[in-house]
Amino acid sequence: MKATQFLISTLKEAPADAEVVSHQLMMRAGMIRKLGAGIYNYMPMGLRVIRKVEAIVREEMNRAGAVELTMPVVQPAELWQETGRFEKMGPELLRIQDRHGRDFIVQPTSEEVITDIARQELRSYKQLPKNLYQIQTKFRDERRPRFGLMRGREFIMKDAYSFDRDQVSAKASYQVMAQAYRRIFDRFGLRYRAVAADSGAIGGDLSEEFQVIASTGEDAIVYCPNSDYAANMEKAEALPPQGPRPAPAEALVRTPTPGKSTCADVAALLGVPLERTVKSLVLATDEIGENGDVVRSQVWLLLLRGDHDMNEIKVSKVPGLNVGFRFATVAEIEDHFGCKPGYLGPIGLKKPVRIVADREVAVMADWICGGNEVDVHLTGVNWGRDLPEPELVADLRNVLAGDRSPDGAGELAIERGIEVGHVFYLGTKYSKAMNATFLGEDGKPAFFEMGCYGIGVTRLPAAAIEQNHDERGIIWPDAIAPFTVVVCPIGMDRSADVKAAAETLYGDLLAAGVDVILDDRGERPGAMFADWELIGVPHRVTIGDKNLKDGLVEYQHRRDAAATKVAVADILAHLKGRMAV
Amino acid sequence: MKATQFLISTLKEAPADAEVVSHQLMMRAGMIRKLGAGIYNYMPMGLRVIRKVEAIVREEMNRAGAVELTMPVVQPAELWQETGRFEKMGPELLRIQDRHGRDFIVQPTSEEVITDIARQELRSYKQLPKNLYQIQTKFRDERRPRFGLMRGREFIMKDAYSFDRDQVSAKASYQVMAQAYRRIFDRFGLRYRAVAADSGAIGGDLSEEFQVIASTGEDAIVYCPNSDYAANMEKAEALPPQGPRPAPAEALVRTPTPGKSTCADVAALLGVPLERTVKSLVLATDEIGENGDVVRSQVWLLLLRGDHDMNEIKVSKVPGLNVGFRFATVAEIEDHFGCKPGYLGPIGLKKPVRIVADREVAVMADWICGGNEVDVHLTGVNWGRDLPEPELVADLRNVLAGDRSPDGAGELAIERGIEVGHVFYLGTKYSKAMNATFLGEDGKPAFFEMGCYGIGVTRLPAAAIEQNHDERGIIWPDAIAPFTVVVCPIGMDRSADVKAAAETLYGDLLAAGVDVILDDRGERPGAMFADWELIGVPHRVTIGDKNLKDGLVEYQHRRDAAATKVAVADILAHLKGRMAV
Repeated sequence: MKATQFLISTLKEAPADAEVVSHQLMMRAGMIRKLGAGIYNYMPMGLRVIRKVEAIVREEMNRAGAVELTMPVVQPAELWQETGRFEKMGPELLRIQDRHGRDFIVQPTSEEVITDIARQELRSYKQLPKNLYQIQTKFRDERRPRFGLMRGREFIMKDAYSFDRDQVSAKASYQVMAQAYRRIFDRFGLRYRAVAADSGAIGGDLSEEFQVIASTGEDAIVYCPNSDYAANMEKAEALPPQGPRPAPAEALVRTPTPGKSTCADVAALLGVPLERTVKSLVLATDEIGENGDVVRSQVWLLLLRGDHDMNEIKVSKVPGLNVGFRFATVAEIEDHFGCKPGYLGPIGLKKPVRIVADREVAVMADWICGGNEVDVHLTGVNWGRDLPEPELVADLRNVLAGDRSPDGAGELAIERGIEVGHVFYLGTKYSKAMNATFLGEDGKPAFFEMGCYGIGVTRLPAAAIEQNHDERGIIWPDAIAPFTVVVCPIGMDRSADVKAAAETLYGDLLAAGVDVILDDRGERPGAMFADWELIGVPHRVTIGDKNLKDGLVEYQHRRDAAATKVAVADILAHLKGRMAV
Repeated sequence: MKATQFLISTLKEAPADAEVVSHQLMMRAGMIRKLGAGIYNYMPMGLRVIRKVEAIVREEMNRAGAVELTMPVVQPAELWQETGRFEKMGPELLRIQDRHGRDFIVQPTSEEVITDIARQELRSYKQLPKNLYQIQTKFRDERRPRFGLMRGREFIMKDAYSFDRDQVSAKASYQVMAQAYRRIFDRFGLRYRAVAADSGAIGGDLSEEFQVIASTGEDAIVYCPNSDYAANMEKAEALPPQGPRPAPAEALVRTPTPGKSTCADVAALLGVPLERTVKSLVLATDEIGENGDVVRSQVWLLLLRGDHDMNEIKVSKVPGLNVGFRFATVAEIEDHFGCKPGYLGPIGLKKPVRIVADREVAVMADWICGGNEVDVHLTGVNWGRDLPEPELVADLRNVLAGDRSPDGAGELAIERGIEVGHVFYLGTKYSKAMNATFLGEDGKPAFFEMGCYGIGVTRLPAAAIEQNHDERGIIWPDAIAPFTVVVCPIGMDRSADVKAAAETLYGDLLAAGVDVILDDRGERPGAMFADWELIGVPHRVTIGDKNLKDGLVEYQHRRDAAATKVAVADILAHLKGRMAV
């Protein structure tokens, strides 16, 4: 490609609404242009990256035995009504009516349609297992689209769905995909982690997120530096503390703590570490009657160490809370604790509540909590002595760096990541809802065991940039760079030698199958280099009159601090030595 | 690809709603599955065809210097309001509101967005010419979607848009595209014609349709077998008759024609050829006042030979009618002709009308027309004697087979075609509406001269089938076949020799880069052959025990009446000799 035949459109400044670096750099590099909130044109420079991502995904999906098809962007509502998602999904599901007033949606994902295809086309166990995928435009009407391609409304996703005859086979299909994803992400040339994720109500461990590591990532990734253990924050288990609970050493004391309603303030006032305090979180569950009204509510008190954060996913699995919980109202709190929030604790309740202690709190001695009276806390609190042993003990909290790794391999570390892929075992959730069956070997109909597997094709370039950039711009890994090599001739219009050398190298690289762009725009060196550093092409060859007289050109990798002089005769070999693909 | 790893899903019968052969065969061959009216899943077998179409289009577009980008499927209404199309387009424009109640559309095409991109990114004449294209999902909410992919609602289109500094350059860009389209359609391996089409109000000859020839096509294509002349019916000119008008030979006679209100009935009653009759078509034009009301209406009488059909496009170009016309109301007709429709003519009017004679009618003598009295016609009518010479003479009619070719190369022929591509010079229609300018060489802003160029990517396979099928199924040209070669082993499960020979040939073909599928499903020969003949894979190699003992396999092209025995050692060379790609 020659630059004059392409569309290069760099900007000095990013627009004001570009908050994150990938959004800023994709705008400045002319990769995307905003058409509306969360809706972008994929400009030629950006589309090249997207197409390379697609090609890698497609190759590895095919290699893993998946078969590509394409489902419509605009889908009739009927199938979505079968699973109830037409009603259940919020306004992020974009709903349309056609000219005849019939309901349609713009696909945010395609479980319903693929399950419909399976129940029609996969009639016998002999046709299974089967994995069907598409790389197709999706739409989610995010309330607050932002961060460019990171959280857009329209985006491209690769979504695959596996269909199996039983759980054993489904788990094998899941593993095939999990392995294919590792190959895909390896090929992208990005640092990433496959982290265990929560698999919801289905249980089991068959859910992994593929997270591109980036300090700006939205998600906390928990991992053990000494082992393969990695999980997202929702999933990472906080092990029970080692060793028994210490014996009580302090007496129970009511301590005035005027105006101090947080653990941090109380710890500071009393001059004790925050780890000595226990915070009280009040939840409620509702029993719903046949007519849909609330028949009875139950108030729950969760006790966590003052420096720990509640993990909602874990709480949602506690027996009794797993029916769905909410935070208690102030009225419910005052009714049960006789006190307003800020000074709550498990001792001296007006009405009984169900108490759940975090594993850590259950082995604490001499702790500090609210006294159920404004401006009063209790110190020297001890289980068994001042209150009964906890009714329920559970893992309720997010892990912290330094916690023991669940696999016993050492301490946990935490870094941040951007989720760009997810493999998930679905079970029979959709096949049962849509009565999607096949004829089993025994001649009886059976529900498909399903898995689903997504990759955010347009999100990936944004994540790659969050991980790989500097103050000058993007630094693409070779595999997904818009161009692998840029040839920058200096003074091409003045020097026939430079022009000839540039054209020759350009031709040689094309002939060698290298994805090269020749910058024939006639820009001055400063502006030319700034453009390509912003755009992030990994390999640059600069051809100037002065070096050329000595039979030399300059090579510089986007990460190199300075250029290297290379003999004209050696540049092709030199490039190949530095290229990753 | 091995068949067991793919998704093959053939049907014995096409669904009842499949009216045309391409729809029937695509359904039966498992290429598409209906999701809703005019909305189809592109199944794996069909998607392979679509991808091959896309690849050819992309390669040739790139070769022609066009640059690919992707515009969103869901587009904000604002740009469509700038050109007025948001209001002007009918219900085929699918309109949506997002969660905030803002208006959006699902793109039926992308002139507005691409013009918006151009006015932002193409700032100087130095960046021109530029041709930008996308291959992307489109939606048109057809009132009556039908014929499968031929007239669907959701479809894939390649749409390209050229931007030029002036008309000369724009016309050159148009010609580049017209040539690229010829290369594209040549590569598809289909019989097609590039036919001149009407370019609307812009004038000039810069509009061509690319029509795939098929007897089932919706469009009539006019061409000259002795030359390159080809045009669609709207565009094809009917030359003026040769030679002067004959002298009158008959007297004007009022002839009773009770109940005969059509030319055909009158000709039959009077025992004269239909070519002797003249039909009267009554139109009206309205003059609109400042407040939008009709100030004045003008009634027009068009005279065409009884066996000729009116061509609306040609009529819309007649001076005076080119402001927009409508058919006259019965009241207007009775007011001017003193007679109800069926017996109208140009002689004896109650009020004056403007008369336009078709070129053919203008040189007729002794013709027959209505007498402006119920159940009465006039015979022996002659210009200049019975009525004044026609005020206006114009080409008003569709040509007929046998008419003289406008290029003088002989007689016209007519065949039917399916429009799958269109190249069109737009001029400044969109750039003016959206104030899209660039800085010219003189430092002044100028409007872009634009062209647009479409190819119906998903329509093309349907057109290919309409052209290439027989009673057994589809016959794909090699270039867009889902697979080029199918290897059919007979009794693969019983014979190790057959299995080994099939696997070896399969491997050799893969290694040679041939798109081959090995049918390892273990079907019986009859069912297996029926499937592949239905699916339409052009080249088949059958491997059976009996032939194999003699060192032979069977080759059969989908169009061959019978198989040919070929030595195992020669089959690769034999295949290559028969393959078009």
